[in-house]
Amino acid sequence: MRVVGMNSGTSVDGINLALCEFLPGPQLATLSCRLLAQKEYPHEQQLQQQVLRLCRAKHAPLDELTELNFILGEAFAAAFLRFIKDEEIAIEDIDVIASHGQTLYHLVEAGRTLSTLQIGEAAVIAQRTGITTVADFRVADMAAGGQGAPLVSFLDALLFADEQKNRALQNIGGIGNVTFLPAGQGSIGAYAFDTGPGNVLIDYGARYFTQGKAGFDQDGKLARSGQPDQRLIAEVLVHPYFQQAPPKTTGRELFGDAFAEAILNKAQQRQLSIEDTMATLTAITVKSIARAYQNFGPARLDEVIVSGGGSYNPVLMEGLQAALPDSQVSSFDRLGLPASAKEAVTFALLGHEAVHGRSANLPQCTGASTHTILGKITPGKNYLHVLQKLAKSARPDPAHLTRLIFVGSEQE
Amino acid sequence: MRVVGMNSGTSVDGINLALCEFLPGPQLATLSCRLLAQKEYPHEQQLQQQVLRLCRAKHAPLDELTELNFILGEAFAAAFLRFIKDEEIAIEDIDVIASHGQTLYHLVEAGRTLSTLQIGEAAVIAQRTGITTVADFRVADMAAGGQGAPLVSFLDALLFADEQKNRALQNIGGIGNVTFLPAGQGSIGAYAFDTGPGNVLIDYGARYFTQGKAGFDQDGKLARSGQPDQRLIAEVLVHPYFQQAPPKTTGRELFGDAFAEAILNKAQQRQLSIEDTMATLTAITVKSIARAYQNFGPARLDEVIVSGGGSYNPVLMEGLQAALPDSQVSSFDRLGLPASAKEAVTFALLGHEAVHGRSANLPQCTGASTHTILGKITPGKNYLHVLQKLAKSARPDPAHLTRLIFVGSEQE
Repeated sequence: MRVVGMNSGTSVDGINLALCEFLPGPQLATLSCRLLAQKEYPHEQQLQQQVLRLCRAKHAPLDELTELNFILGEAFAAAFLRFIKDEEIAIEDIDVIASHGQTLYHLVEAGRTLSTLQIGEAAVIAQRTGITTVADFRVADMAAGGQGAPLVSFLDALLFADEQKNRALQNIGGIGNVTFLPAGQGSIGAYAFDTGPGNVLIDYGARYFTQGKAGFDQDGKLARSGQPDQRLIAEVLVHPYFQQAPPKTTGRELFGDAFAEAILNKAQQRQLSIEDTMATLTAITVKSIARAYQNFGPARLDEVIVSGGGSYNPVLMEGLQAALPDSQVSSFDRLGLPASAKEAVTFALLGHEAVHGRSANLPQCTGASTHTILGKITPGKNYLHVLQKLAKSARPDPAHLTRLIFVGSEQE
Repeated sequence: MRVVGMNSGTSVDGINLALCEFLPGPQLATLSCRLLAQKEYPHEQQLQQQVLRLCRAKHAPLDELTELNFILGEAFAAAFLRFIKDEEIAIEDIDVIASHGQTLYHLVEAGRTLSTLQIGEAAVIAQRTGITTVADFRVADMAAGGQGAPLVSFLDALLFADEQKNRALQNIGGIGNVTFLPAGQGSIGAYAFDTGPGNVLIDYGARYFTQGKAGFDQDGKLARSGQPDQRLIAEVLVHPYFQQAPPKTTGRELFGDAFAEAILNKAQQRQLSIEDTMATLTAITVKSIARAYQNFGPARLDEVIVSGGGSYNPVLMEGLQAALPDSQVSSFDRLGLPASAKEAVTFALLGHEAVHGRSANLPQCTGASTHTILGKITPGKNYLHVLQKLAKSARPDPAHLTRLIFVGSEQE
């Protein structure tokens, strides 16, 4: 089955698209995935401004909201049609579109009803393209008591869950989060939590010492020649978040600029050089991750696979390897799946799983009480063709996949 | 397949439910329908007030809207679970839930994007019940350029479209509307428009002459002994709406209390008695319908089938029969399908058609540019069971049904 995944992130920059071909894998409950094409198209500025204004205002006229849902549906449909034209893909070759839409609100406050609102009308996409469209992936997990996130752990877990090896999938964005994959449990054994600061401290230091010229420590150059201050590292790591047992999530409210600034002040009191300070910030990040693994990870951790911006910082990567001598640390990139396509590929996979009636949330990652099928299927003109494909595939189906084999990208 | 249809009307009074059993009919593209149970449960007052407040305010805080979608989903799920308990229905016997949800906004203004917003999260219903839930029926028709309404014409058309007979399905609510069913064209030949005033004039007169004690002319008693004033009837019927060619829709803005009051003033100037005035109001309604048929209906109209409150007014019904001597006038009730269950049965049918991948809008009724499958399918725990049922049914499927045979109600 060929599926196009689409999403537009919270910054409302543009629409990411990825065309994936999924084929049955060598064993039951396994699947292979080939990335056939990927692209990003920026949003029209007026539409971007309208969405951002509405999100910031936190309230909306009902007519504007109703209309915007359809207008965004048109934008997703147009991006899809442009994508297949630019990439010279025949529309008949695509079975399903999987569209994450645009998040307007995500409600996970204590005492409120867990709920989320994504717009970008799937019926418009299905109508303009004729292709059955799966959308609204977060709601089912939240209806089951989950946070509706992270959904991308599902891809990580399917790609890397292993029969023999205990693995950690570490994402280092602004904040760090880990998905542990105990050996022999497939994707279903996955559990996840936020480890703490990702690049947020290093980026703050880089901005500070370059007077804003550099947004991050390119190739770890600033940290490379410095010596980390072990006492300062130890002082920072007594923060209660690091001791707290999972499940736990955090954000820039806790580990943000104010937290980084306080560390920098201490470094200056101790008259640390720029290089020593950057080495210290990098080491704090490394140790917060390594400690999390030692405290809350499996007793034996064979491999650590790192994604996100932090995977491009060699000092961070070498630091992680040194801190975890019994584990092999490598980059997600080794698969050949471009980081820019990861989310769109995730939604393509979720759409594929939805039409096959297999669950695609990871309860130990999202906090849901049960496994559940994610997404709503909006039948397009090709729906009977999709049903026929499903009818031909083997029965009985497993309740969920255990492995995804990435067989490469046609673009390489 | 057994499907429970659910809906909550614009007045937000409560949730109507109907359990229907659909079986293949004698010919391809036909289906039989048996009503196994039906019920209405009132909304909790607090929820009703919250929805009404939000609709009246015409704008909403995004968090409240996001949460209300899920809370209404819980209400629909609870109503379903109560329904099957009260009616002693085994949940395993139900294949699909079809939920219309609650309309918050319906946007059909010129110059705006045709769009509509129904809430009552289907993922919550699917999660609480385990049953695959189809919802959001109007959006696909609007994405195809239609008004997303009327959807109930689909049921009318399927029940009454005939090989030999030209039929009119006349609904007489506040406003009157007709669906014409040309012989031999199945439901697809249906076309519809609003004929003008339904009960609105008669009800106004009844309220006026009883000082508000009666809301309508029960059994046509007030009109029965009067003589209609032909000159006044002729004067009213020159109104341009009656001359305008379809497609056309109207409402209480045009044919409302002000319109009724103007007629009553003229009747008083001419010193018509109460009975003569009521007979005149009834005759205006009758003639506006009969003229619409003569001007815009098929040359030969074999049968007129009347639903809505007006079908219980014998003077209206006899008047229609007298004005249409070549047609047989009868009541929708003759089928044994209770009027109170009609909408919920319609949504059950639409849900059934969605999972079968058949179109269910009537372009000549809604104004859509094309036939389209209505509804989004939210897979529940029983989704593979539904797919298996679909795989077993005969292929190739027709693109849409041509006939529905109502085989009675278990409740009778």
